[in-house]
Amino acid sequence: MARCGTTSAMNKCLVGVDIGGTKTAIVIASQPPVSLARVEFPTLPDLGPERAVELIKKGIHQLLGSAGIDESGLGGIGVSCGGPLDRITGVIQAPPNLSTWVDVPIISILQHEFAVQCRLENDANAGAVAEHRFGAGQGTRHMVFLTMGTGIGAGIIADGRLYHGASDLAGEIGHVRLSPSGPVGHNKSGSVEGWASGGGMAQVAYQEVATAIDSGEATILSRNFHDSGIVTAKDVADAAQQGDELAKRIIHRTGTRLGEALAIVVDLLNPERIVIGGLAMRLGESLLAPARLAMQREALAPSAKDCQIVPAGLGEGIGDVAAICVAMGF
Amino acid sequence: MARCGTTSAMNKCLVGVDIGGTKTAIVIASQPPVSLARVEFPTLPDLGPERAVELIKKGIHQLLGSAGIDESGLGGIGVSCGGPLDRITGVIQAPPNLSTWVDVPIISILQHEFAVQCRLENDANAGAVAEHRFGAGQGTRHMVFLTMGTGIGAGIIADGRLYHGASDLAGEIGHVRLSPSGPVGHNKSGSVEGWASGGGMAQVAYQEVATAIDSGEATILSRNFHDSGIVTAKDVADAAQQGDELAKRIIHRTGTRLGEALAIVVDLLNPERIVIGGLAMRLGESLLAPARLAMQREALAPSAKDCQIVPAGLGEGIGDVAAICVAMGF
Repeated sequence: MARCGTTSAMNKCLVGVDIGGTKTAIVIASQPPVSLARVEFPTLPDLGPERAVELIKKGIHQLLGSAGIDESGLGGIGVSCGGPLDRITGVIQAPPNLSTWVDVPIISILQHEFAVQCRLENDANAGAVAEHRFGAGQGTRHMVFLTMGTGIGAGIIADGRLYHGASDLAGEIGHVRLSPSGPVGHNKSGSVEGWASGGGMAQVAYQEVATAIDSGEATILSRNFHDSGIVTAKDVADAAQQGDELAKRIIHRTGTRLGEALAIVVDLLNPERIVIGGLAMRLGESLLAPARLAMQREALAPSAKDCQIVPAGLGEGIGDVAAICVAMGF
Repeated sequence: MARCGTTSAMNKCLVGVDIGGTKTAIVIASQPPVSLARVEFPTLPDLGPERAVELIKKGIHQLLGSAGIDESGLGGIGVSCGGPLDRITGVIQAPPNLSTWVDVPIISILQHEFAVQCRLENDANAGAVAEHRFGAGQGTRHMVFLTMGTGIGAGIIADGRLYHGASDLAGEIGHVRLSPSGPVGHNKSGSVEGWASGGGMAQVAYQEVATAIDSGEATILSRNFHDSGIVTAKDVADAAQQGDELAKRIIHRTGTRLGEALAIVVDLLNPERIVIGGLAMRLGESLLAPARLAMQREALAPSAKDCQIVPAGLGEGIGDVAAICVAMGF
């Protein structure tokens, strides 16, 4: 069994905590990105933050125990979480997916419990660093990472370093307008998040399926529409995999809108690579091929030529590695 | 008379060359941003680059002579010019405003003539550094400079340093789409350059004046329309200053579109200040007030709150200081 050293800071263990709206994962690593052990539990935000914070503390103690080390072998703890948050004071403010977590001072809580350096970072930025160090962004100097889940956000690596902006709010591509009206994301109709996130795709899908039902077009998605009254991005992905034509059209349209958003990033930042996580990993080329075409049509030709659009390299493990990267510091 | 030192590199003189479509200026400085002397001549791009390059060499010799120093007192030469250009190889490729200047190796020409370090940079980036060091961007870590002339481009200061991007093309805000169609800029209909540059304002003005003439609305601009068949951004500025209502509406509309472009910059880069040169210095609050309003309406509220929109601080001297900054290196 791999062990964390107790004498040298060089091989002390690092703990990463990835707090999501559905689940919270805790991992321990001595040689990132490989983790020695991992625990996870359902976050259940409706039950408030206290229970989850206790489970995080318990989970870290449990991992330290399983790795056979005491606290002197722990080099640091990193917490990755959706924003808004205050990275400097270490407070989770009130992320939409953790609505009961209002001003949770997670860093001072963990620092008090474990007496080591603890850091907090938003998940898009942490994911950008993880992909840059260990994933599909390796070897680049100028890279943008896009998270594509219920929402959409970006982490920017400029000249090899994470770029935070003046108030830690750089990378809010989801809030940029693509059209005067349209699906809603980030409280803005016609925004990139409205058109090109998982949540946006679900809105487009709902409209398209309603129209298809009215016009008598056959689609697997009519079942989801009737059964649950909603059509999720996952439903669309599953239906497309079964060959459903409407589902394929919805993914193509989302990909095209995603490409229009990427063109804005390419024109402004001229990155050598854009790495896309979340939905892009599940949908692959059915999403990325139309996104590339739209980006090449919309962006300045020489910048478009120099920019690769690729899915995230760390796959489902990106959250774990991202949290460990926060612990490593950047 | 201020003199350039000849023994220490610290107080050697620097020469800046600002090549524009209308005029080329050459300045010499020992303590930037103050210049000791300056010459300028009409660029006349239709006559080809050879004449202008000879005049640049002659002008530099003349300035060195007037400053009373030989070449050992010259610390470096900086050239600021519109892109596209290759900063690394020092070649001016074919800027739209210097259409006969195809692949002019300006840096090797000057290095051969003067045997000192010579550098080339595009004018938006050089202007960004000039405003950051000596103008309205002083004291910021995250700043964006917008040049607003016939075209519109941006120079990005990220974490205190100029950000170039993967192929030196970062900051092409003028190419970003604001609407599916509209005035043309950067070969793209509905782009930021189409709506919010001086050239874009001229296109909007032409349409508006034609409509006003048809509908019998009185406007000073009908004179420009009839006399020359065009309405320039300068015509609009002059008419507005004389109280012309149509001219004021055109400026307000351009300002609103400019603000929509600024919102994209604010959402993506979260700068603490955006400094705007060119037309913004001439038009002042008549342009910037509607731009601020549109930016605040369109951008993420906390990022908008933290971002100031100000006119360039170096005024008409920005080109001289920008070229000197290129000579200083960054």
